[in-house]
Amino acid sequence: MSFEERIERCLSESVEASRSASCPPGLEQAVYQAVFPGGARVRPKICLAVAEACGEDHPSVSDAAAAAIELLHCASLVHDDLKCFDDSPIRRGRPSVHHAFGEPLAVLAGDALIVLAFETLTRVADQAPERLAPLVRILTEAVGMRSGIIAGQAWECEPKVNLDEYQQLKTGSLFAAATAAGAAAAGADSAPWLALGQHIGSAYQVVDDIQDVAGDAEKLGKPIGQDEARGHPSSVQEMGLDGARRHFKSVVAGIVEKIPHCPGEDRLRARMIEESSKFLPDALAENAA
Amino acid sequence: MSFEERIERCLSESVEASRSASCPPGLEQAVYQAVFPGGARVRPKICLAVAEACGEDHPSVSDAAAAAIELLHCASLVHDDLKCFDDSPIRRGRPSVHHAFGEPLAVLAGDALIVLAFETLTRVADQAPERLAPLVRILTEAVGMRSGIIAGQAWECEPKVNLDEYQQLKTGSLFAAATAAGAAAAGADSAPWLALGQHIGSAYQVVDDIQDVAGDAEKLGKPIGQDEARGHPSSVQEMGLDGARRHFKSVVAGIVEKIPHCPGEDRLRARMIEESSKFLPDALAENAA
Repeated sequence: MSFEERIERCLSESVEASRSASCPPGLEQAVYQAVFPGGARVRPKICLAVAEACGEDHPSVSDAAAAAIELLHCASLVHDDLKCFDDSPIRRGRPSVHHAFGEPLAVLAGDALIVLAFETLTRVADQAPERLAPLVRILTEAVGMRSGIIAGQAWECEPKVNLDEYQQLKTGSLFAAATAAGAAAAGADSAPWLALGQHIGSAYQVVDDIQDVAGDAEKLGKPIGQDEARGHPSSVQEMGLDGARRHFKSVVAGIVEKIPHCPGEDRLRARMIEESSKFLPDALAENAA
Repeated sequence: MSFEERIERCLSESVEASRSASCPPGLEQAVYQAVFPGGARVRPKICLAVAEACGEDHPSVSDAAAAAIELLHCASLVHDDLKCFDDSPIRRGRPSVHHAFGEPLAVLAGDALIVLAFETLTRVADQAPERLAPLVRILTEAVGMRSGIIAGQAWECEPKVNLDEYQQLKTGSLFAAATAAGAAAAGADSAPWLALGQHIGSAYQVVDDIQDVAGDAEKLGKPIGQDEARGHPSSVQEMGLDGARRHFKSVVAGIVEKIPHCPGEDRLRARMIEESSKFLPDALAENAA
């Protein structure tokens, strides 16, 4: 089964398991729309690739870790799109959750997705009970207020922001969790894997900033020009478009060097090179032209 | 150490552990205000009383379970007070989080508190690793979209609501989690404890409904008359004030009968009678007069 199939199956199982007569239909639909159809599922793919490279012995534990990370990512998108943050009408080419279902259900859908992420981990806890605590710790660290997405998002409410730190919190932290959780799901030490995830996150964030200036709104499934309009910190704002493109190339070049020694090191390196080329946006190709 | 002291200490440790140079000061303050000073801390006290009755062998595991439940309760209050729900200016006699810190930080503070609840459980996981999965399951069930607070809150967005189910989800579920988590934290089977919590939750919800009609806003630390103003389902609306008072008395009378057999059964029964009398509101005393 491909990574894509494993991820979609595990996400479906999690969301299906949440349906009940007690769950109001509006909330159920809002949660479903927040998760399906997905974007590139970059984070869970990275998680599974690392688990495989570490010699995963319980694939369903890796699947749960990957799905939990994607659910937390979806939660952050739903809340970021709220009126009080970005007020985005469009996400993944469709109405955003708060535009389709209203503000109250969007707040609750985001909350429900956070909870569902942790529930997903417990569904497979019997298979490798000693891995639950490290996985919950990795996820809470990645999204929490100390050093996670929520802290990153909250910096947007402060008068002064450090761009590197903001991007590390808002994007890097969940990528770091993806690599660390992949290792932890396979029973390996997660610590050496954090740097790889952070590095991939940096590359991804620069791409996102460039796309926001030079991307194609239709292909992206969301409007462009939003960082400037909202005064969000951005690499392009700080380095200019060409500077950001040069920065992206140097960051991408360093990704494979960050891969720790592991049984499937060679295969993971090949995967990383392949995946990096996929998230090279058209905006960067223009630069090459 | 009293239950009160144990609860405040564990909550402080959790919130303190979340402070970091990466956490924006606004978010830190918003989370602090959402948790301190607290209300009656009814749910965590029930959790500790049950853990004690079950012969707790790792008090810090019970403390973490109790604190996690209170953090989830605080999260739900912060999000309930948002503009798109109740738009409450006052909570616990002070400005609500969204009034003091604005809508974005209130959304993020609620999110952070949900995450912090699960993080709190992992801080003590090494002491009794096999109890983490049951505790996470109890908490996700209590707040999640299948049968928890979030489902309850989302019923407010539906045209038709069943009052009993709505109250069970919005209030009963976290009380049920408080008793179940107390048992699980002590290494006991949690299932027989759910009914007690649900029953306490029913009593508490009726009190809340009565207070909203016949309570004292200053003593409650929040405005009254809100259920009717917002069209929320309420026992008073359904049974009238006297009917709700009669219903409350019959529910309270049944609480002690729901206590399962356990080593500290007698002491727990005494505690429950004492605590029930505390949450007998002035509104009920008026009825006796």
